[in-house]
Amino acid sequence: MILDASCQLVYVASEEVPTVFMLRPRSGLGQWVMREEFHLHPEVPVVEYTDLYGNLCQRVVMPPGEFHVFVQYRVRVPDKLDSCPTALVAPVGNLPTDVLLYLLPSRYCQSDRLIDFAMSIVGDMPETYERVAAIHDWIHQKIRYDGTASDSSTSALETADTRRGVCRDFAHLGIALCRALSIPARMVVGFLNELQPMDLHAWFEAFVGGRWYTFDATQPRTTGNRIVIAYGRDAADVALATMFGNFTMTRMCVTVKPTDFFEVK
Amino acid sequence: MILDASCQLVYVASEEVPTVFMLRPRSGLGQWVMREEFHLHPEVPVVEYTDLYGNLCQRVVMPPGEFHVFVQYRVRVPDKLDSCPTALVAPVGNLPTDVLLYLLPSRYCQSDRLIDFAMSIVGDMPETYERVAAIHDWIHQKIRYDGTASDSSTSALETADTRRGVCRDFAHLGIALCRALSIPARMVVGFLNELQPMDLHAWFEAFVGGRWYTFDATQPRTTGNRIVIAYGRDAADVALATMFGNFTMTRMCVTVKPTDFFEVK
Amino acid sequence: MILDASCQLVYVASEEVPTVFMLRPRSGLGQWVMREEFHLHPEVPVVEYTDLYGNLCQRVVMPPGEFHVFVQYRVRVPDKLDSCPTALVAPVGNLPTDVLLYLLPSRYCQSDRLIDFAMSIVGDMPETYERVAAIHDWIHQKIRYDGTASDSSTSALETADTRRGVCRDFAHLGIALCRALSIPARMVVGFLNELQPMDLHAWFEAFVGGRWYTFDATQPRTTGNRIVIAYGRDAADVALATMFGNFTMTRMCVTVKPTDFFEVK
Amino acid sequence: MILDASCQLVYVASEEVPTVFMLRPRSGLGQWVMREEFHLHPEVPVVEYTDLYGNLCQRVVMPPGEFHVFVQYRVRVPDKLDSCPTALVAPVGNLPTDVLLYLLPSRYCQSDRLIDFAMSIVGDMPETYERVAAIHDWIHQKIRYDGTASDSSTSALETADTRRGVCRDFAHLGIALCRALSIPARMVVGFLNELQPMDLHAWFEAFVGGRWYTFDATQPRTTGNRIVIAYGRDAADVALATMFGNFTMTRMCVTVKPTDFFEVK
Repeated sequence: MILDASCQLVYVASEEVPTVFMLRPRSGLGQWVMREEFHLHPEVPVVEYTDLYGNLCQRVVMPPGEFHVFVQYRVRVPDKLDSCPTALVAPVGNLPTDVLLYLLPSRYCQSDRLIDFAMSIVGDMPETYERVAAIHDWIHQKIRYDGTASDSSTSALETADTRRGVCRDFAHLGIALCRALSIPARMVVGFLNELQPMDLHAWFEAFVGGRWYTFDATQPRTTGNRIVIAYGRDAADVALATMFGNFTMTRMCVTVKPTDFFEVK
Repeated sequence: MILDASCQLVYVASEEVPTVFMLRPRSGLGQWVMREEFHLHPEVPVVEYTDLYGNLCQRVVMPPGEFHVFVQYRVRVPDKLDSCPTALVAPVGNLPTDVLLYLLPSRYCQSDRLIDFAMSIVGDMPETYERVAAIHDWIHQKIRYDGTASDSSTSALETADTRRGVCRDFAHLGIALCRALSIPARMVVGFLNELQPMDLHAWFEAFVGGRWYTFDATQPRTTGNRIVIAYGRDAADVALATMFGNFTMTRMCVTVKPTDFFEVK
Repeated sequence: MILDASCQLVYVASEEVPTVFMLRPRSGLGQWVMREEFHLHPEVPVVEYTDLYGNLCQRVVMPPGEFHVFVQYRVRVPDKLDSCPTALVAPVGNLPTDVLLYLLPSRYCQSDRLIDFAMSIVGDMPETYERVAAIHDWIHQKIRYDGTASDSSTSALETADTRRGVCRDFAHLGIALCRALSIPARMVVGFLNELQPMDLHAWFEAFVGGRWYTFDATQPRTTGNRIVIAYGRDAADVALATMFGNFTMTRMCVTVKPTDFFEVK
Repeated sequence: MILDASCQLVYVASEEVPTVFMLRPRSGLGQWVMREEFHLHPEVPVVEYTDLYGNLCQRVVMPPGEFHVFVQYRVRVPDKLDSCPTALVAPVGNLPTDVLLYLLPSRYCQSDRLIDFAMSIVGDMPETYERVAAIHDWIHQKIRYDGTASDSSTSALETADTRRGVCRDFAHLGIALCRALSIPARMVVGFLNELQPMDLHAWFEAFVGGRWYTFDATQPRTTGNRIVIAYGRDAADVALATMFGNFTMTRMCVTVKPTDFFEVK
C-alpha cells in the first residue's frame, strides 16, 4: 500500500527553545519513502545528524513566538507484516553484536525488575516467537487503553501495576517483558493507517529468528500499513521532538490515508 | 534561493546489476531539503544505510531489462557562499579528529606526489585561505575544460600533466594540491544552478579557519545556489551510482531551476 | 602519578553464560595506558567491539565450570583533576551534538522526575560549574553511604527518597540532578587510588564550559588518581560484566597502588 | 602460539610534528592481546580515537628533539590460518553492507584499471576462493621481492608494470586484483613470526564465503603466527605512523618471538 501521511505541529514559546526533531523517515527496513516534505516556519538554521540508532535528527533553536512544523510523506509500506511462530529465540551468545544493546534495561523499560512477571506469562512455552506473541496477547487483554492513566514519565513498571495506559505504555511493557526473557526488543514510533483516533503511534519490535518482527499490543493482531519514523531503546530515545525550555503546543494534526496514485514523472 | 532539481536515469541491463545509489541529500550543512522524491521503476527492495562519511546510500539489485530512477528535490540553498581570506590554515595538530582523514591521499588525489607542485603554486604565501584560493585560480586558469580528455579512471596526477579535464578532474586536482599542503580537502557532488550545459556537477571543499569552504575551479569565482548530494574523499567514494555488472545508461536528464513558490500547506 | 591496578574475577557457572566484559581502558581522555594485561582462563574465543559510547567490549561465552578473569593495568593519570567554578552551563542549543544524548533520562537516572528537586538544590545560583558543585555537595552531605540500602536495580529516584546507597547510587543521583537542569552528565566506572575498602568504583562527569569535569560525591572534594574504564549513560551501559545466565561470582579482588617505576626499555 | 612482539622507534625532529600512530592491536578477530605496553618518551598528551575502520589511533604532537616510541605485545594467535578452496565469491548484491567499501579503488589499488589483467590471471576459474589463491600464486611467482624498486608512493598499477616491490606492494597488487574481480579485499599491517629479516609486515585479506581470509603473497603458502595491528583500504589508511612535518627516523627495531610462558597471576 502507498500511504500519504502528514503531521502539522504549532508551538508557541516566549523564549528560545533548543529542540531536536526526529521527523525524517529512512527508506529500507521494509518501507520506501517515495516523497517527503519538511517545512519549518519561520525558517531557522538546521543541523541534521544521525543518532546512535541511525535515526536522522534535526537540531534547531525554536525562536520565541509561533513556530510551525509541517511534514508530509508518501511511503510504500507492506500491507501485511511477517510473523513466524517457529522462529527461535537466539541464545544471547549467538546474537549479532549490534543487537545486544536492546537487551539492556532503559528509562521506561526496567526489564531487570520484571523477570518473574515475564516468566509467569510465558511459563514453559518453547523459546520461540510465540513467547513474544504471548506477551503481546497478555498486554492486549490485560492492559486497558486509558489516556488519563499515564503521562510522559510513566514506565513499564508502573503500567504493569496500574494496568492502564496508552500506546507508548503498551510498547514499553512489551519491550521490558521481552528483555526480561533475554529477547532483544526496541521501540518504534510512526504512523498507522486507520488508527482511531488518528495520532502519532508507538509500538515495538522483537528480535527472534535472526530478524526483527513487529508487535502492536494495542491491536488484537498486529496489522501492516505502518510508516516507521524512528527506532530506539524506549521513548527517551525516540521522542519526535525533544525540547529544552518552556513552550506550548497549540496544534497537532496528523493525517494518514492510502493513495492509489503512483506515476514516475 | 529555493531550487527545484531533478535527475532522471534510465538503465538497460541484461543481467542483475547490484547497485549503490547515493541520491538522497542531507539537510543541514547550509541547505534545507524542503521536499524530496525518489522513485524506482520497477519497484525493487531497497536497503538504505549511512556510509562512513554520513551519506545516505541506497542498495538495490537492478533487475534485467529497463530500470528507471527518478529523484526530485526542492532545497533552500544559500545564494552566496562564504569566503574568508584571513582564515588560517590550522596546524595539523589542532585539526578536529574527524577531519584528519581528508589529509590522506586517495585513489584520484595522489597528494603525496604533488607536494613540490603545490608549493610552486603557493610559494611563500601566508598560510591562510588564500592558499586554497591560489590553487583554485591556478586550476581555473591553467586547466582547460575538455570533455574528451579524461575518463572515470583519470586522476589528479594525470590532470596535472595533461592540463585538461572536466569538473571532477578540476575537483580532484584541487583536493590533491590542498592535501599536499596539509590542508584537509574533500569532494562534493551535487547540482549547480545555471550550469551550462546542465548536468550533475562536482567541486571541492577545503578546511581552513575551523570550517569547510566551497571552491569550484570550473568557475572564476565560486557561486552559490548549489545542492549538495554527497561528500567523500574523492570520486571513488561519491559516485551517485556504483554499479557492479554490465549495463547501458540510455538516458540521463538533469534539471535545476529556481522556484519562488513556498507555502506551508 | 603512575598507578598499577588489577582486578581478578572468578565465576562458577553450571551452564554456558554469554557475557560482555568492558575491561579494556582507552588511552587519551587524560590518562595513558602504559601497560595492560587481560587473561581469561580457560581460553575462549573473544570478539572485541566498540560500543555506542566508544568503550571497548569483549564478548565471550563463559563455559560451565570455573572461569577466571584477570586484568592488570599500568596507567599514567593526573594527580589533580581540573575544576573551574566560572565555567558556564551552555545553553542546550550550543552543545556539541554528541553530548545531547547525555541530557536524556535513562534507566537509573529519571531526570524528568527530579526537576523540582534539582531546582531546590541550586535555587537561583548562576548557571555555572557551581551548580554541579552544589549537587555534588548536597549528595555528599545528605546521602549516607550504606552498602545494604540498595542493589543493582536501585535508581536515582529511590536514592533521592531513601538517602542511602553506594558509589553507583551517588553517581546516578548526581547524573539525574544535572540532567534535570539541562547539564549533560555521564557515568564513569574505574579505579580510584586509596579507595577504602578497595573495590571497583563509580563516579560521574558533567559537561560545562565546553568540556567534561569529574565529580565524585562519595568524597568531600573529588581527588585525582583515577583510572577510567568506561563511560555511559548510567550503570546499565557500563557494567564491567553483563552476563546472561546463572552463575556465581566466587572471588573478586581489586588492587590499586602507585608505582615509581617507569623506564623505557 | 603466543607471540611476544616489540617495536622501538626513535625520531629526531627540529620542529613540532603532528603524528597519528596506529600501534594498539585489537583483540578478537582471531587474536587475543594478553599483554600490551605503549611508552612515549618524552611523555606528551595523547588523544586516542577509533578511525573509520575500527583501528585505535593515537594522536600526538611530537616535540622537537629526540622522540622514543616503544610498544610491546604478548598476543595469542592462530598457528595455522583457515583456507577454504570451495568458499564462494558472493554476488555483490549479497555482500554485507560494511564490506562494500572494500570493493572501491583506493590510492594504491587502482582496481578499476586492472580488470583485464585480473581476468587474464583467473580466466574461467570458478568463482571461489581459488580465484584469490590464483592471484596470490601469480604475485608470488611473478613479482620479485626488491627493496630498491619501490617507495611509499608506489601503487599497484606500477607494481604490475615493474614486477618488483616489497610486502606492501605485493599486498596492494593482491588487493587491486581482487577488487577488479568484485571480491572485497583489504590491507593488513602487523607482525609475522620468523619474517626474514624481521620488520613490520603487510599482507591482505579477501572476503569470500561470508568471511575474511588471509593471503600473504610474499610467501608460497600463507603461514599463521601473525599479529594484526590495523586494517584499511590500503597503506594510506594503515600507516603505523602518519606524520605531518620534517623528521628523521634514527632507529627502528622490531622483534617477534614465541613464548611458552603463560600463567594467570
